[in-house]
This record gives sequence, C-alpha cells and structure tokens, in this order.
Amino acid sequence: MDPGDRKQTASGSTSVFVHNPHLDTLKDDILYHFSLGTGTHNLPAMFGDVKFVCVGGSPWRMKAFIEYIAAELGMEDPKSEYPNICAGTDRYAMYKVGPVLSVSHGMGIPSIAIMLHELIKLLHHAHCTDVTIIRIGTSGGIGLEPGTVVVTKQSVDATFLPKFEQVILGRTVVRNTDLDLGLSEELLECSKELNQFPTVIGNTMCTLDFYEGQARLDGAFCSYTEKDKQDYLKKASEAGVCNIEMESSVFAAMCKLSGLRAAVVCVTLLDRLKGDQLNSSHEVLHSYQQRPQILVGHYIKKHLTAKAHS
Amino acid sequence: MDPGDRKQTASGSTSVFVHNPHLDTLKDDILYHFSLGTGTHNLPAMFGDVKFVCVGGSPWRMKAFIEYIAAELGMEDPKSEYPNICAGTDRYAMYKVGPVLSVSHGMGIPSIAIMLHELIKLLHHAHCTDVTIIRIGTSGGIGLEPGTVVVTKQSVDATFLPKFEQVILGRTVVRNTDLDLGLSEELLECSKELNQFPTVIGNTMCTLDFYEGQARLDGAFCSYTEKDKQDYLKKASEAGVCNIEMESSVFAAMCKLSGLRAAVVCVTLLDRLKGDQLNSSHEVLHSYQQRPQILVGHYIKKHLTAKAHS
Repeated sequence: MDPGDRKQTASGSTSVFVHNPHLDTLKDDILYHFSLGTGTHNLPAMFGDVKFVCVGGSPWRMKAFIEYIAAELGMEDPKSEYPNICAGTDRYAMYKVGPVLSVSHGMGIPSIAIMLHELIKLLHHAHCTDVTIIRIGTSGGIGLEPGTVVVTKQSVDATFLPKFEQVILGRTVVRNTDLDLGLSEELLECSKELNQFPTVIGNTMCTLDFYEGQARLDGAFCSYTEKDKQDYLKKASEAGVCNIEMESSVFAAMCKLSGLRAAVVCVTLLDRLKGDQLNSSHEVLHSYQQRPQILVGHYIKKHLTAKAHS
Repeated sequence: MDPGDRKQTASGSTSVFVHNPHLDTLKDDILYHFSLGTGTHNLPAMFGDVKFVCVGGSPWRMKAFIEYIAAELGMEDPKSEYPNICAGTDRYAMYKVGPVLSVSHGMGIPSIAIMLHELIKLLHHAHCTDVTIIRIGTSGGIGLEPGTVVVTKQSVDATFLPKFEQVILGRTVVRNTDLDLGLSEELLECSKELNQFPTVIGNTMCTLDFYEGQARLDGAFCSYTEKDKQDYLKKASEAGVCNIEMESSVFAAMCKLSGLRAAVVCVTLLDRLKGDQLNSSHEVLHSYQQRPQILVGHYIKKHLTAKAHS
C-alpha cells in the first residue's frame, strides 16, 4: 500500500497509521516530549474517543481553544478546570474535552514535527479512527486585510513549490504537501454560515525563518532593500500565496503519510505588503487569533450535531 | 567591515551589532515574541549591564538556571522570586539576575532563530558590550557515556559539513558555524577544575528533525534498518561528531554575525549507538540536565570573581 492511502477497517472506519516496523519490537513506547507512554498510561482509555485534533503554536491559545470548544459543545467542566495532560513536561501542552484534543506545537517545522511524530503514535496506540486534524495558527498575509482567515489549499516552500524536503540519513526526500480539499471547502462553507470575518482559500508559504526567510526588513540582519522585499512578496502572490507561516508544510506531509484528514486555518495578523512589525494593539491581535478557533469550533459542532441526529 | 568582525568601541569594549540599515528608520522596534519593545520598555536600563546570556530550549530549565546562578553568585532574591521578563507572551521565557540573562528558545532552528533575532536587537538597543552567550542544552551522544557534556567545536549539518543554509528571498545563503574556540577551551578547563562529570570538545550535528533526521528507529515513520542507522551514526562519528541536537548551527551562525562570543554546551542524555528512546529515570535525566548549568555557572562565577579582583 502506498503511504498516504487511507486504511479502512472492517467496520469502514479509517485508522491513524504509523509506517514503522520497528515500533512493534518496542516493549514500551515513551512519548518523551509529551511525558506520556504506553507503559505508564492507558492511551486507549485516555484518547480512544478522539475524533478532532486541533494544534497551534501557543500553549495559551490551545488552552483557550479547549475552554471555547467546551462551551460551544455544552461540555464545560463546572469547575472550569481543563488540566494539561502533558503537565510532566514544558515542551508541549495538551488538553481534551470529549472527542476534541487540543495540542500546542511551538514555532517552526522541527518543533511541530516532533509533536506530530508523537501525536501520530499516540493516536495509533489509542486505536483512534476517523480523526480530523486542523492547525489553527497565525500568519502574515500578502495583500489581504489583516484579520482575514486563510484556509490552505497547498503549502509551498520559499520558491513557491508544493513540497517538503525531509532529510533522512543525510539524504533529502521530497514529500507531498497536499491537504484535504474537501475539508478545506467545508471550512470555507462554515465561514460563510458564520459570516463574521473574511475567509479565503489559497496557498500558504511555509518558511524556516521569520525574519530573513520571510523578507522582513526588521530582523537583526537584513541585506536586501524594500524593493527586493516587495518584488519577492509579489512573486509569491502571483504564485497564489495568500499568507506565510512556519509549520504547514511538514504538517501537511506528515498528516498525509499517516492518513489523517488535515487542514490549515491561519488568520493573517498584518499585511506584509504594508509592513513587517506586529504593531496592532494587543486587543486587536487577540481578537484576530480567535477567528480560526471560532471557525473550527463551528465546524466541529456542526459535525457532532449532524452525527448525533443521524 | 566583514560581518562577524568584532566592533571595538573607543573604550576597547566590543558591541553587539545588528546588520540592518532599516532598523534606524523604525520609530519603535517591537520585539514581538518577547513582548518587549523600544517604545514600551527602557531597554538600556533593563538590560544594559548584561554580560552573560544563557539560552536553552526549556523554559523550566532556564528558570532553574537563573535560580542556580543567583545562588552561586550570592545574588539570591530573599523572596526567591525571579519574574519572567517575557510574562506578556508564552513564546519564550526570560529571567535576569545581575549581569546574567537566561532565555528559553523552544525546539529547533526556526524557534531559536526568532529568539536570537530579537535577542540581538535587544542587546543592541540596550547598548550592551562584551557579551558572552552560551547555549546550555540536551543532545543525543554518539559512543559517549550518557551524562557526558559536549562543548561544541564546530556545528555540522546532516552531511557532516560545518555550514548553515539560510534561505533569503527564496535563495540559499551559506553561513559559517564556527564558535569561539578560546571560550570552548576555557569551558573545558572549568570542567577539569570542577571534576564532577566527563566533558569533551567535539563536533555537534544539528538537524531539522528529531526522529527521521537523527536516524531514530522509534518515530511514526521509519523507512530504514537498524544497520542503516548504525552505518550513518558511525560515519558521523568518523567525521568527529560527538553529539546531535537541533539548534547549534543557526546559533553559531547568528552569534558570529553579530559579534557575540558564543559556545554550545550540551549534555548527552543517551548513547544513540545503543538506543533511541529516553528511558532513563526522571531523576537521572534531571541530574544530567544540571551539568551544563553547573559548568557554565562555574565559568561565569570565575569570570566575575576575577573581574572583581582585577
């Protein structure tokens, strides 16, 4: 079977799967950066019912999301306590309410990749089926009104190509960065139903650096001109790039390999054609950051309601 | 002047410098991921006396370090309160006691690069001089007894070459990853004085991924054999690689560009030739992680004592 094909169980549900024959030889599997493990935790009991996983860079935001989704689903804890499941480590934070898991991933491709390796193994060990995973993040927009939400069609690299380069044993392997188009369209439909903020579908450029890697003029180092920056961002725009962030390519590649239905939903905090510094007020930036949460919350609620009525 | 040459002031001290003519045109400079800025904070008053900056991935560890160094230097806060200077954000944590600054950087090259851009600008805005910066981290060792501390001679990539590739406007620029050899030798000397744990100088391989990128057999995906892994790690060892981590290359490159005297001191948590999982007890791993702190604490104390007596 090709990696990325979805595995159907006898009941017609889709498993999350790992591609690693060595895992079967491990007595226990320690998910070190989560401070969890198969020998120390009953992962099927803790996570077997997970159907939606939301991930984002900031631990505070992922805690806010679980509080928001609990209220949306009418599953609030009366004491409003949502314990951090990864309390034994400060690498990532993880929260759960009903079938929704919320996990932080830090900033950048390497940080989210460590989290995804361990999350995919966690979902596999917990025998989860039919899991949808959505990254809810922040980004810089190109030619969009700040606060616009971008649902990613394809994640592209700094040369605008839809690929992710994974180095394995010193050799570069190229991986596909396709996301689930049906899921993206459903999310766009949800935004229309909400009618609270502008949402578009477009390509997202994923970079390894926030300053020089995104043509910012305000880093510690900058060897190019304002015109060079504008030319680069215009070329990106012509290639269909709507926004720039730092995790979508490896997220798309790894979710595809493991058969997870995946989408990336990022709000744009500024228009990079007009500036580089994040100088909007704290309140404005905070309200923008709630938009992907509201959109994905609506999507999850809609799915769970439809399922309850079916 | 070549980037990387140290700038000497009239008094003979060395400034931290940025290479960005655009910064002078900014009215205020917002260090977004620190939640600090020139318009909102008096950076020279807050940070002007900084001489030693220690950085590490984990915020908890960087808080523990400031408590440790405060005790070592006899500068304890009687209430034992060391406020997080970046309390307005959850991206990084920052603590200060006397001339020592302790900053977390998360995991991976992109995460530490964002922090370093903003740290270098902070030190520049604060008019700091003669700053030494040391990364105190964790790593996987190759053929070393777990708990061995490695002081990095050169940071090398996954093909064992001493270079860091920075993408700027879609084009790759190669940067030098040399660290300060004199500083490394001083740190090795400090370890001999302490005589508490084994310490070596060697090359450090810096990768973009913890699992496939470091030839681990325990990730969600693994397409190679145990023999492939052993062959790769043996080649690394033959190229002088003593340990593997995920931040040293961009750290070395950016510190060199900004004229910071820099070293990387990482403890090895396991011997990768013998396994991949971090299955030592919490107590053992915790004691290993204190070793770079003890070594660097000794170095700082020695320097400050020598200065006080000179």
